[in-house]
Formats: sequence, structure tokens, C-alpha cells
Amino acid sequence: MENSQTIADLGELGLLQRLFRFCPGDVIGDDGAVVALPPDQRLVVTTDVLVDGVHFSDRTTAPTDVGWRAVAANLSDLAAMGAAPVGITVGLSLPGHTPLTWVEGLYEGMATCLRYWGGVVLGGDLCRADTKSVAITALGSVYPDRALYRHRAQPGQAIVATGHHGLSRAGLELLLHPEQGAEVSAVDRDRWIAAHQRPRPRFDAIAALWDGLETANSAAIAAMDSSDGLANAVLHLCQASGVGAILQETDLPIDPAVAAWVGRSQAIDWCLYGGEDFELVLCLPWPQARTLRASLGSDCAIVGETTAAAGVELQPANAAPPTVLSFSQGFQHFAAASPPEG
Amino acid sequence: MENSQTIADLGELGLLQRLFRFCPGDVIGDDGAVVALPPDQRLVVTTDVLVDGVHFSDRTTAPTDVGWRAVAANLSDLAAMGAAPVGITVGLSLPGHTPLTWVEGLYEGMATCLRYWGGVVLGGDLCRADTKSVAITALGSVYPDRALYRHRAQPGQAIVATGHHGLSRAGLELLLHPEQGAEVSAVDRDRWIAAHQRPRPRFDAIAALWDGLETANSAAIAAMDSSDGLANAVLHLCQASGVGAILQETDLPIDPAVAAWVGRSQAIDWCLYGGEDFELVLCLPWPQARTLRASLGSDCAIVGETTAAAGVELQPANAAPPTVLSFSQGFQHFAAASPPEG
Repeated sequence: MENSQTIADLGELGLLQRLFRFCPGDVIGDDGAVVALPPDQRLVVTTDVLVDGVHFSDRTTAPTDVGWRAVAANLSDLAAMGAAPVGITVGLSLPGHTPLTWVEGLYEGMATCLRYWGGVVLGGDLCRADTKSVAITALGSVYPDRALYRHRAQPGQAIVATGHHGLSRAGLELLLHPEQGAEVSAVDRDRWIAAHQRPRPRFDAIAALWDGLETANSAAIAAMDSSDGLANAVLHLCQASGVGAILQETDLPIDPAVAAWVGRSQAIDWCLYGGEDFELVLCLPWPQARTLRASLGSDCAIVGETTAAAGVELQPANAAPPTVLSFSQGFQHFAAASPPEG
Repeated sequence: MENSQTIADLGELGLLQRLFRFCPGDVIGDDGAVVALPPDQRLVVTTDVLVDGVHFSDRTTAPTDVGWRAVAANLSDLAAMGAAPVGITVGLSLPGHTPLTWVEGLYEGMATCLRYWGGVVLGGDLCRADTKSVAITALGSVYPDRALYRHRAQPGQAIVATGHHGLSRAGLELLLHPEQGAEVSAVDRDRWIAAHQRPRPRFDAIAALWDGLETANSAAIAAMDSSDGLANAVLHLCQASGVGAILQETDLPIDPAVAAWVGRSQAIDWCLYGGEDFELVLCLPWPQARTLRASLGSDCAIVGETTAAAGVELQPANAAPPTVLSFSQGFQHFAAASPPEG
């Protein structure tokens, strides 16, 4: 039966034939794909590996969503570099008993995501392994003076975050514990689960950034995506730029509905450390930050300011002294300094 | 103790710090690497996934050799496209108990291979998995009129193979069965094992190809590498080009010392189906083929001719009728038509 066919039944060549329909005809069938970049632009390249049981699970993620997320995670890295998508390569490791429908679902999800934001499947490799994994390399292009890096933050700049943070973590919680969240509205539930299963790389925010700048120059801007959480992004930007930061707890981009569901303390933890929101975090001069904020509206928050002093601190809403954030620290480690839940 | 340290002991950030020394300073620490291609050249991209127990094994391959081979396999794809190396990305999946020395050895082997032929480590990703695997994407650049494809062979062209074929398979045999091969000379033994552990992408043959052409144009040339064996390469070139081929058994690039060791029939099998020789197979007009042959000397053979009729055939040395080669067929399937061993 077609539906129960495994990739072992089909063989590598048979599987490749099935997957070719997801690739443009002129890039397949050679030892490599030949691609023209837009004139005068630089190549941008980024790689992510997703492993079954670590980065995705059949319990929470359909194969189409695995494909979408794998591509979206890589495209988010391109967005954070200020680059436009050119294409991806896909290195697939699969057990022989993997259903053909799973692999086709994966590719359908990848293709759908690429149709949204641009880029094509440029090639890949298939091999047998005990565990499913997907290694994606995304290629993009950017004008040299619009490339965004982490190391260009300066003291006294605004720290801007797009979107809400913690939604993907909230969506995961609902997927892992469907019996919970009875008090969550259907709209919020769908929104959080979509944030987890179908994250959207913020190319729109980069476009808004350039629209709002008088001269197209990225020299005074630092950027990265928040794939590992808002705190991690701010820590990386500060470390790379040799600056510090103070974040205002009252300005953290928490979804009020998440805080209402799990309490403010947990919502702050998910905002700072939940990860996988694939939003953008930028350090830029205050006027440009305000322009971007005005352009993106409530989908963008100024969450703090860079400092000349080292260290990343969170200023609680009450008068308590600030808490130092670190790479290895979850919110639970400094929960004592946070306000009570509710 | 340093030598027994595992990557779980070190943690992901600690491991990344150790690996940064293998990357140029200006491409690390961001969500992606920004790379300038040579002006007017196209990007060429290719991906390979290598899995422990399938593509390499601690039994036959030291970590430095795994690194070398993984990079060489990808660079060989670039060479087959006529491209020069720009860089690679590395997606590593590793069990927590992997020794740090294994990972550093892997990167040393990759870096050594890149130093030989050009290109740098442009980035990568690390993740935990039950089985070691290495997903490499190689990026190269090529002038549009020098890009080599598989589909451009025409009937009546010469089929050229660089190097001997079957050496990697012979080297693997010696590694798997060290008790065998007592009659093989030390020089041959080292040469075959090197062919298996340290394959050399044939950028030199591409340079010789262009040196020998009056006009730099790849329109009448088809090429691919022989990573899956000489027969596989000829079959792919013919299928992509819509031509057939007849190979002459007497002209197959067999190492006489391999034939002396395992017999001519086995040597033909390894030549056609052994794989992993990472040589080049080209279809090109006879005058250019002879020029290339003259330039590369005994390191290059004209093994047959393309035909208008479909199908790839091997003409035995004796007067027996030709044998049809196919993707799924090993030499043992047509051993009856081959001459007796000796």
C-alpha cells in the first residue's frame, strides 16, 4: 500500500526521484548546484542540524511542521544577518523504516516555507541512520553595507525585540500537556501553537528597519535572532560588542495572555529563556529604534539599553536591585528577585 | 585528564570555543558568515552527509582521516563542477561520550584538507545524537562558461577517467583484513590505503583541461566525479545527456598491482563499482580528450566512447559480446562474460 511504504522499500534512487519535484529542474542532477547571486551582493551562509527527539518529536510536530521549522530557523538566521534567501541544501539522515509520507511531508513543509519567504531547494544528500536528523544549510545574499553583525552595538543604544517572546514555549507546553490550558482561549491556543510549529522569520522587520533609516548603513547596528531566547541574544550581542546592558522587566515583550495563564514569573522565564521564538533582537541608536518601533507598532518593543559597563542586568518592576543574567542561568535561578506571580 | 575529556564534560559552548581556532576570525560569532565571491563568478553548492558505521568507522579511519575524507568528498564534487573551493559549513551530530580528541582530530583533518585545496570553515552547528554524523556543505565559485555539468555529453565523444579506479576499495580491503595482502609491496599498500583515507580531489585535472582548450567553454563537455564508482559515473553522464556508451575492458584504469593481488575479474569489479576513488569522469571531443591525456600522462585514460544508441556496455577483452552495465548491477552479475582471473 502506498501509504505504508517506507524509504527502504523505495530505495535511495526511488526516494530521490520523489524528492526532485521539490527542486527547480535546473539545479538537480549534478555534483553541485550553480547559482547566480544578485550583482554586488555578498553570500551569507548558515547551518542548523535538527535531531529527532532533541529538536522535534512526532508527539508535538507533524512532518510538514518539522520541515517548515527547520527552514524557518535557518531563514531566521539569514534575516538576522540582513540577508535575503537564495536557497537551502538538505542533508537527511533517516532510518530505513521511515514512512515515505513522513519524508514527503517534511519536504512539503520546507517548500511551503520557502514559497513564503523566497529561496529554493538547491540540493542535498540522503543517508541511512538510526535516528532521523535534518541538516540544513541556508544561503542568502546581502549588500555589504546592509549586512548585520553582532559586534556593532555601542553603549547607550536602545535594545529592540520584535514580537512577543515565550509564545513558542507556551505552544510547546500546550502540545506536551493537552490536558492543560482549559482556560486558554482558542485564539491564544492556536496562536501559541502556531508560534511553536510555524515560526515566521522576521524579514518584514528588516525591511521596516531599512525603510526607517535615512542612509542604508549597518555600521551602528547589531542584530541576531532569538532562537535561544531573548536573554541569550542580548548576552551574545553584548559579549560580541564589548558592552553591557540593562533590561527593564516592565518592558519585556511578554504576552499578557501567557502571564495570565502561567503567572508573570513563569512568563518572564519563558520570555527570557524559552527560546525558538525566532524573533529579532537589535541594538541601535535611539532615534532609529523609535522609528522602527513606530513602524512595527505593538509587534516591537524597546526592552532596555546598552551600557559601557560589562554585564547584562534585569531591572525588576519593583525597587529591588537588578539581577545579573548569564548564559547558563535560567529564570528560576533568580526567581527570588522577581515579583510574586499574578 | 585532558585526553579522556568528553564533549559532554566540555559542554557545547566550551566545545565551540575549542573549534573556533579552525575558523577564520571574521566569519565566526554571527548568525551566518558573510562571504565575497570572486566577481562575475557563480556560486556552486554541494552537500554530503557521512554517518559513523556507514561512511566511516573507527576501525579503518582515524578522526583526522574522517575529517579529510568528508571535506575531500565535497571538494571533489566542486572539482567535478569545474569550481574552485570557497569554504564549507559543518553540521556535527555527536554522542555526549565522544572524546574531545576525536572532534579536534576531525577538525584538524578538515583544516588540513582545506589548506591543500583552498577554502575555509565558514560555520556550522553542533548537536547531540546517538550516532556520530558529519553533514558538510561545500561552497565554490566558477565562471559561468567554465561550469561543468553532466548533461552535455554528445554521441561520439571520448570518455576520459582520471587516475586508477579501485584503489580506495583495495585500501579498504587491506584495512578491514590486515592479515591479508602479505604479497602486496609496502609501496602499493601505502598507496591504496592513502587512496582510501586521504583521497585527493582532482582540481589539477580541471586546470589541465582548461590549459589544453583553445577556448574556455564547457558547452561540449560533461563531467562528474566517480565517488560511487566508474560505472555509476558513466551511467549518470549518459542518462543526463541522453546518450549511450561503450567502454573497453582493456582500457579500464585498473592498477596492475591490484589485478596481480586479487585477480583481474575482482580488479575490474572494484574499478567499476568499488567507489570512493573521487576521480573525475569526463565526456569530451576526441581532440580535447587526447590533449588532456597527453597532459596528465598515465594518470588519465580514455576508457571508451559515447554512442547515439542508449545503454552503457562493456566490451570484454576477448571476442565475447558486450555486457550491459546498470546502476543496480555489480561486476559479479556479469562475471561470466569476463576473462578468467590471472
